[in-house]
Amino acid sequence: MHEIATLGVETELHRFFAAARLRASDYGDHYVALWDSLDQASRGGKRVRPALVLAAYDGFGGTDRTLSTPVAVSFELLHTAFLIHDDVIDRDLSRRGMANIAGRFTERAIAHGAATGQAEAWAATAAILAGDLALSEAHRALALLPVPAELRGRLLDLLDRAVFVSAAGELADVTNTVSRDPLTIDQVVTTLEHKTAIYSFEAPLQAGAVLAGAPEEAIDALGRFGRLIGVAFQLTDDLLGVFGDPASTGKSVLADLREGKQTALIAHAGATDRWPLIAPFLGKDDLTEAEAELVRGHLRDCGAPDTADALAREYASRAVEALQGPLMPDELRATLTQLALSAVTRQK
Amino acid sequence: MHEIATLGVETELHRFFAAARLRASDYGDHYVALWDSLDQASRGGKRVRPALVLAAYDGFGGTDRTLSTPVAVSFELLHTAFLIHDDVIDRDLSRRGMANIAGRFTERAIAHGAATGQAEAWAATAAILAGDLALSEAHRALALLPVPAELRGRLLDLLDRAVFVSAAGELADVTNTVSRDPLTIDQVVTTLEHKTAIYSFEAPLQAGAVLAGAPEEAIDALGRFGRLIGVAFQLTDDLLGVFGDPASTGKSVLADLREGKQTALIAHAGATDRWPLIAPFLGKDDLTEAEAELVRGHLRDCGAPDTADALAREYASRAVEALQGPLMPDELRATLTQLALSAVTRQK
Repeated sequence: MHEIATLGVETELHRFFAAARLRASDYGDHYVALWDSLDQASRGGKRVRPALVLAAYDGFGGTDRTLSTPVAVSFELLHTAFLIHDDVIDRDLSRRGMANIAGRFTERAIAHGAATGQAEAWAATAAILAGDLALSEAHRALALLPVPAELRGRLLDLLDRAVFVSAAGELADVTNTVSRDPLTIDQVVTTLEHKTAIYSFEAPLQAGAVLAGAPEEAIDALGRFGRLIGVAFQLTDDLLGVFGDPASTGKSVLADLREGKQTALIAHAGATDRWPLIAPFLGKDDLTEAEAELVRGHLRDCGAPDTADALAREYASRAVEALQGPLMPDELRATLTQLALSAVTRQK
Repeated sequence: MHEIATLGVETELHRFFAAARLRASDYGDHYVALWDSLDQASRGGKRVRPALVLAAYDGFGGTDRTLSTPVAVSFELLHTAFLIHDDVIDRDLSRRGMANIAGRFTERAIAHGAATGQAEAWAATAAILAGDLALSEAHRALALLPVPAELRGRLLDLLDRAVFVSAAGELADVTNTVSRDPLTIDQVVTTLEHKTAIYSFEAPLQAGAVLAGAPEEAIDALGRFGRLIGVAFQLTDDLLGVFGDPASTGKSVLADLREGKQTALIAHAGATDRWPLIAPFLGKDDLTEAEAELVRGHLRDCGAPDTADALAREYASRAVEALQGPLMPDELRATLTQLALSAVTRQK
């Protein structure tokens, strides 16, 4: 989806980071290293959000890359900022199998003779600041857009909603962990929608459409599609996080269980008689593969993966329904329908 | 300075937080509590940055509060965001003698039955998100300003510089702590300038002047004044942080020594033969008042407080010099000269 178009986004991000690195060189090596780490952190993703901005923009007849590229960049840097601050919250030192900003600055601190406490302070400082810098540029990219005030205002409102609702979802994700009882499936879905679906799917699609001057009804429909498909993707991710093939997903099938992550799988199991057999293993830091296999057996027995899979398919199907209607351009509908299918047919 | 004018800023901040709280109520009690904490965090300061924006704006003949208020609010919320993230970096749970956001959310987590690790996660999450929300609104307030694109671009550039340079200063402040050797006074001053003077003095003054359409030469002069006076204020703060009267400053005279803060006092002492008598006490977590008094004696003996005081006065005096010249309106020059005097004549 829009691989050629997102090349423009790569170019723009490259230009932005090159300029920032040069500017940072006036402030010492550590600050240059911070920008290098931020640049690194922004790579390696699939550029889903820029692709959605551009798909919606092009789909509604937009042709001006000098406008659509900054909007796409804005949502990509928002994503980068959220991932970075999410890692600080989770105290993670790696992402996608590599040292993240905190991980890199921990190593850097130790190389400079820092004690353990100091190395932790460097890591937290670097990661918090890097997130702030990425977030700032996400806002700036929209703020500088040379479009009429009303249009810029609408785009800024979409960004504002994305930040506001994601923060609510992130907070809920953390406060949910206190509950000893499993959440309901509704609570799980709401958190997925707030934490991820709005900023990753709804907002980029709507921003692209608004920028292209799409009809209001179509913008609403894209928002609905985005929320639904965002949930479908996350439900599938959670399913693969326990039952997937690490060789094809690149993700551990132990991490979610060890963390005690509140997923639809767990919510389903929590309402069945298998729950007492599963609960003791959730959040167990040193859960073994053998114990995980036991948990998987219980989850299968109570129908959790089938329920999660069915729910993901239901959301994907409702998402596709949202695309019907004469105002949605055919090519965009086809692209997004394809995306919806990919949300639920990924390698298990 | 501009106490009546900053009433408009209070009103606007109140309106902003009331609207956010209402909006947050759709996302649960914890999120409302997060916004309450953020509102709380933005109070209690002296509104120095809004006062500087308005002084410069009014000084150059600006009269439109619907423009100057959002600019003033932007720099106040930037300040709020920095304080909040600074507290996360320093792992502080209080500020100005009250529980800060992390402190409030630690209590909240415990009241909800959280274990210690979970309470820490709530605290860090709430504080990081609150800082992100304040930072986002700082950008948004300028981005929505109904002024011509070129003017908005200049204001956004000032905000961008404020964020960029403060991040460099904050990083340097933390990485400096690894050095076993004291910094030079130049290094101390540079860090003060980057971490605080630019965003707190230079940028707000220049933003007010730019918004009012001040001549370029005057905008440059205000920037110079801001950097110099910002350093003078910080040098005096550091002096009061060891030699002040807590009853009048409201600040501990042990905290800086316990933290091992790299100040001009310490930089001066580091180049004298008293250093070996002082060094062992710096960064000592449980430093007693008696030990602190011993350190104060050694600092006095080597002339550290006199040097720091003289340096602060030199910076204040150079700041006042920057205000000379026919382009600076008399009333603004008088106001800022008064401010410069207050930077070095505060209660010791």
